[in-house]
Amino acid sequence: MPKGLRIAINTGGGDAPGLNAVIEAVTMSAYHRGWEVFGIKNGYQGLLDTDEIVRLTPEKVRNISSTGGTILGTTNRGNPFAMPVKKVDGELEIKDVSDRVIENFKRLKFDCLIAVGGDGSLKIAYEFFQKGLPVVGVPKTIDNDLGGTVITFGFDTAVSIATEAIDRLHSTARSHERVIIVEVMGRRAGWIALNSGISGNAHVILIPEIPFNIDKICDHITSLELEGIKYAIVVAAEGAIPEGGSEIIKEGAKDGRQDVVLGGVAEYVAKEISKKMGKDTRSLVLGHLQRGGSPTTFDRLLALRFGAAAIRAIEDKKFGHMVALHPPHVTTVKLEEALSSMKRVPLDGDTITTARDLGISFGD
Amino acid sequence: MPKGLRIAINTGGGDAPGLNAVIEAVTMSAYHRGWEVFGIKNGYQGLLDTDEIVRLTPEKVRNISSTGGTILGTTNRGNPFAMPVKKVDGELEIKDVSDRVIENFKRLKFDCLIAVGGDGSLKIAYEFFQKGLPVVGVPKTIDNDLGGTVITFGFDTAVSIATEAIDRLHSTARSHERVIIVEVMGRRAGWIALNSGISGNAHVILIPEIPFNIDKICDHITSLELEGIKYAIVVAAEGAIPEGGSEIIKEGAKDGRQDVVLGGVAEYVAKEISKKMGKDTRSLVLGHLQRGGSPTTFDRLLALRFGAAAIRAIEDKKFGHMVALHPPHVTTVKLEEALSSMKRVPLDGDTITTARDLGISFGD
Amino acid sequence: MPKGLRIAINTGGGDAPGLNAVIEAVTMSAYHRGWEVFGIKNGYQGLLDTDEIVRLTPEKVRNISSTGGTILGTTNRGNPFAMPVKKVDGELEIKDVSDRVIENFKRLKFDCLIAVGGDGSLKIAYEFFQKGLPVVGVPKTIDNDLGGTVITFGFDTAVSIATEAIDRLHSTARSHERVIIVEVMGRRAGWIALNSGISGNAHVILIPEIPFNIDKICDHITSLELEGIKYAIVVAAEGAIPEGGSEIIKEGAKDGRQDVVLGGVAEYVAKEISKKMGKDTRSLVLGHLQRGGSPTTFDRLLALRFGAAAIRAIEDKKFGHMVALHPPHVTTVKLEEALSSMKRVPLDGDTITTARDLGISFGD
Amino acid sequence: MPKGLRIAINTGGGDAPGLNAVIEAVTMSAYHRGWEVFGIKNGYQGLLDTDEIVRLTPEKVRNISSTGGTILGTTNRGNPFAMPVKKVDGELEIKDVSDRVIENFKRLKFDCLIAVGGDGSLKIAYEFFQKGLPVVGVPKTIDNDLGGTVITFGFDTAVSIATEAIDRLHSTARSHERVIIVEVMGRRAGWIALNSGISGNAHVILIPEIPFNIDKICDHITSLELEGIKYAIVVAAEGAIPEGGSEIIKEGAKDGRQDVVLGGVAEYVAKEISKKMGKDTRSLVLGHLQRGGSPTTFDRLLALRFGAAAIRAIEDKKFGHMVALHPPHVTTVKLEEALSSMKRVPLDGDTITTARDLGISFGD
Repeated sequence: MPKGLRIAINTGGGDAPGLNAVIEAVTMSAYHRGWEVFGIKNGYQGLLDTDEIVRLTPEKVRNISSTGGTILGTTNRGNPFAMPVKKVDGELEIKDVSDRVIENFKRLKFDCLIAVGGDGSLKIAYEFFQKGLPVVGVPKTIDNDLGGTVITFGFDTAVSIATEAIDRLHSTARSHERVIIVEVMGRRAGWIALNSGISGNAHVILIPEIPFNIDKICDHITSLELEGIKYAIVVAAEGAIPEGGSEIIKEGAKDGRQDVVLGGVAEYVAKEISKKMGKDTRSLVLGHLQRGGSPTTFDRLLALRFGAAAIRAIEDKKFGHMVALHPPHVTTVKLEEALSSMKRVPLDGDTITTARDLGISFGD
Repeated sequence: MPKGLRIAINTGGGDAPGLNAVIEAVTMSAYHRGWEVFGIKNGYQGLLDTDEIVRLTPEKVRNISSTGGTILGTTNRGNPFAMPVKKVDGELEIKDVSDRVIENFKRLKFDCLIAVGGDGSLKIAYEFFQKGLPVVGVPKTIDNDLGGTVITFGFDTAVSIATEAIDRLHSTARSHERVIIVEVMGRRAGWIALNSGISGNAHVILIPEIPFNIDKICDHITSLELEGIKYAIVVAAEGAIPEGGSEIIKEGAKDGRQDVVLGGVAEYVAKEISKKMGKDTRSLVLGHLQRGGSPTTFDRLLALRFGAAAIRAIEDKKFGHMVALHPPHVTTVKLEEALSSMKRVPLDGDTITTARDLGISFGD
Repeated sequence: MPKGLRIAINTGGGDAPGLNAVIEAVTMSAYHRGWEVFGIKNGYQGLLDTDEIVRLTPEKVRNISSTGGTILGTTNRGNPFAMPVKKVDGELEIKDVSDRVIENFKRLKFDCLIAVGGDGSLKIAYEFFQKGLPVVGVPKTIDNDLGGTVITFGFDTAVSIATEAIDRLHSTARSHERVIIVEVMGRRAGWIALNSGISGNAHVILIPEIPFNIDKICDHITSLELEGIKYAIVVAAEGAIPEGGSEIIKEGAKDGRQDVVLGGVAEYVAKEISKKMGKDTRSLVLGHLQRGGSPTTFDRLLALRFGAAAIRAIEDKKFGHMVALHPPHVTTVKLEEALSSMKRVPLDGDTITTARDLGISFGD
Repeated sequence: MPKGLRIAINTGGGDAPGLNAVIEAVTMSAYHRGWEVFGIKNGYQGLLDTDEIVRLTPEKVRNISSTGGTILGTTNRGNPFAMPVKKVDGELEIKDVSDRVIENFKRLKFDCLIAVGGDGSLKIAYEFFQKGLPVVGVPKTIDNDLGGTVITFGFDTAVSIATEAIDRLHSTARSHERVIIVEVMGRRAGWIALNSGISGNAHVILIPEIPFNIDKICDHITSLELEGIKYAIVVAAEGAIPEGGSEIIKEGAKDGRQDVVLGGVAEYVAKEISKKMGKDTRSLVLGHLQRGGSPTTFDRLLALRFGAAAIRAIEDKKFGHMVALHPPHVTTVKLEEALSSMKRVPLDGDTITTARDLGISFGD
């Protein structure tokens, strides 16, 4: 009998609901083939310091698909191809330590690395693939801006949480006759704002793809008043920008990640509306709430299917590929292809049209 | 200025989460075009007795997308092409009253009927189309067994409710070391059982597409015990049948609808396992809980997109078509085509494979 | 320094949301006092077969308060004071094996037993206390029928799940113009039916404390119709009985536990209403869904407070007592006292009055 | 037959889940007595400008108990006893316009005012009572800091929402090894922080009643690390203050209400921990999410009981009283008494003890 394969798996970048489901499906699918799976802690870090590698068994992963976070951690300290390393004098220096990753990978006799991650992590995975490492990717992005797959896990949960928040804000905005601006994730693409805004019956949706004009937003709020609606819910993607706007309004954002954005777009819009209309406004940043906690049923299933598909991809020697959803099928696409495009909201797509037909303004 | 169109809309068949979202989007999309929308009560009944037709305005439909049920009712009294009518002597007689529907439709100067419904309702809509009525369909099925569209609204909610129920049953089954069989909807197709069973970490899934063998189920439960798992969750589609089985076990089902099935498959399996293994078993029928209440965010958005697309389909004169999801696009397909196929679970699809790789048994 | 105490803890009777929270709080509170806690599996069984006793540490209990079920199991095989034991000839014989429990307790040098359970388990605990065992009780009952405490954990979760189910059933009952009867737990007391029925805007509530008359129920449904409400939701406690009724209608119930009751009160009422009114009726039994899964926030907090209070009770040598909620305080009461009374719904209480004032009928 | 009474009802102050349930129960309870109920819009404003008074009928209030917000609005423009009024020159002047309220009340032949509100609104109600107006109060406070009642509606919902948020933050904090500080409502009393912090397994809870010391918080986080817990969740009431601290850290708070507090306590604590420990920290302000949306089952029932009790209080001529919960009973207390005390977290209560026994730090 040929020896079973030895699979390494890591999770990189921001936390996303469904990561544990991928890990569960990878482990169980490998187990039923007589293969072994090893969990690499904290992205690629665990292949630099190999002392925390853990063997994943059915006992360890059973039923974790319904839990949030990742049992493998994601406190990545950097890109192995450009790692900030402290020199003797305490200064930071950027070093390529990727060879160390490859050496450890070979020394531990791994046959394949399953890299679960977003844009950044998958680019690193692709670089390792180009250097000869057998890699299979599993796409992960809350924001839904990754190319090559119609959708990925984590997004449905984020949209659901945002929608539930919008639902709650309606009643309080209505009771107090206020304009509430809620800021959701999405620096480059407005999917979460768009989908949750429609589902949550928002009055205005602001997305990076459509620069907004404060006066147009105010006009819309006024037209609502004429229809007897004395409050408004504005959903803003954190990456939404005013017409002709620069990055100025996002100066509070920390190093490009979807974190607590003080002085972000929601606060900016709230202040401007208050100034121009004299309306009582409030802003709210959902932040981390969108990426934590138990995945929705949709995301659990998709992540489990992705995990199982990753093992089949290895069986088929589809290295350099990532698994992808092309409904109703889970297939694979070349990492190169997937990474070459970014999925922004198409302005002529039926979702934007639906929003406009429902009477929702994009501030344009 | 040309007169705006006059649209009639009805909802037929079983209740499904998302029906009100379709109605909201149809009404708002028409409103922004200067068209009028009229709600027909209780399927085609409201075109026989026209005294309850109601004009749908933005005020009436605003924010109903998050509510369950349908404001138009679905207490259909029958198919206008084969309607049971009482004769003078009290006997029932089957009559074709479809001409009365067409006459009323013309008399009320409607330009199009949007028929929101499943298999049965859409077949009637297609027959009216063949008789010259301008019809656009919107597919609705909790069970996900309708052809022509990758998915439709209501299904994600049903799967989510079933998954949440399964989650709850795990802890009680584990604490008491019991086998719990939960029966979900799906007479002809096992989608709800399959998707909720995987998402909910069930141990056994029984679907109409794969006849089950009780001994194989018992073997699987025994093998779980050897791994230290002393309980089991079995998810059974109501249409699941034993190998070589007849309809016998479903004799409690009432007139082919997904209702409370006393003496259904769950009870049958519970008794057999108890008899063969001496295990403590319990059965539970989710029934109506799966089709009532607020739709998930996914279903709200899809139903709103479908409603808006139905109005665009009328604009494009796509009569005899129904709207459909071919991700990421909402398009239209010919009713004829959609109705000619039924979507059962493909045995070689990646979802079945995922389940097997996770160690789930289909009792085969 | 005096040696820390050695505490044993078991959970008995039916599963209830919050049991794990009690275990977490007991373990952590003991840990911070330098005491040791030992988990006894499956009620008193684990003190007969002592091979599965497990030391509970912070690592083992951390964050389990949000999980359903009990990590200690509740597959009680019987009362040690009257245990069914197999004789050599295979016949069952009732034996008092309580001395073995006491011997094991002493041999293992336990200082106190914390017995978490309902009526039955606490009665056994009290008998052991009378035989000299230092015992502290923690009351547990989904049904809320235990005396001595205003409320206990598990009940709020059960009522919430039932209310959510009723919410879902409204929309489907309304769309189909049906009468839906939902059966909830409560064999001796109607608290779950009463509280969920009011919270869920039910039209009729049937409880053991008020025998019902089918004609009165039908009259009420007719009066709803006159107000334009063409559907009805009836919530029935499983122990509800018709006026002058015997136990006949509950013959499907298995050995007096709150399990799947085929041919129970919901089905009986559905059939009678259908027969008398010719209405389309459906029945649904919530069963196990009410006792599984994650506890509500209210139940988590109460169970944690109870667990911590049990340790303080030991410190205060309050043996033979159980912890109890007398809002806003958690205190202790004598087991003897608590067990001597059963808490049924008081017919002159303000909750019944509220229901009647809201227009809800009790079928009387 | 004597004429039925004419009841006026208003809702004042901040939005709270359960207000509509009170309105439903008041209306239905009055209806069944043959009384009339009139809804006063926007607190006392609707008794100054009486053109928006609306007759509340069963049709208008049926099933609103499950909805958030208040159908009567709460956009109070001020206290009638000290109302900011614009003078001819545009300057604001504080005027007592309470006589106008009383005149309108008499002119409209109201027999009683049911004032649903918090501290502020009930004080106004009491002043009107002292001036001869027959008033019955219904207490409302998200923060649970109102005296005279063990608890009131809205609080359970707020605690539940906060706990759910904390649950979600655990997984992301753990995956990223971060310290996340979540700020919840509670300017004067720490009930929400305390209850949600315990239920959500927070590591640190900061409340106004216990001034915190940043070094003690850091020490606790370090001790968690030694136990292998590399992340921490800190729950801070917005009114929490550092030892010897002034109001300085809350300068971002707007006019003393529980709104988006930029530069509030969460941000302060996050910055300090980051500075002192070099840990990756994030802060999050829940804000309005805590007071919007559907009430929990607990709050629905309590609010319905309060509404029904208010009508009984009128029947019993208990003017100048408010309804109150003294479990298991709903009773009444004198407004004077209730308003003379504020309910802060008692430092020797069993809830604080429970938290400490669970190993939670208060930063003291």
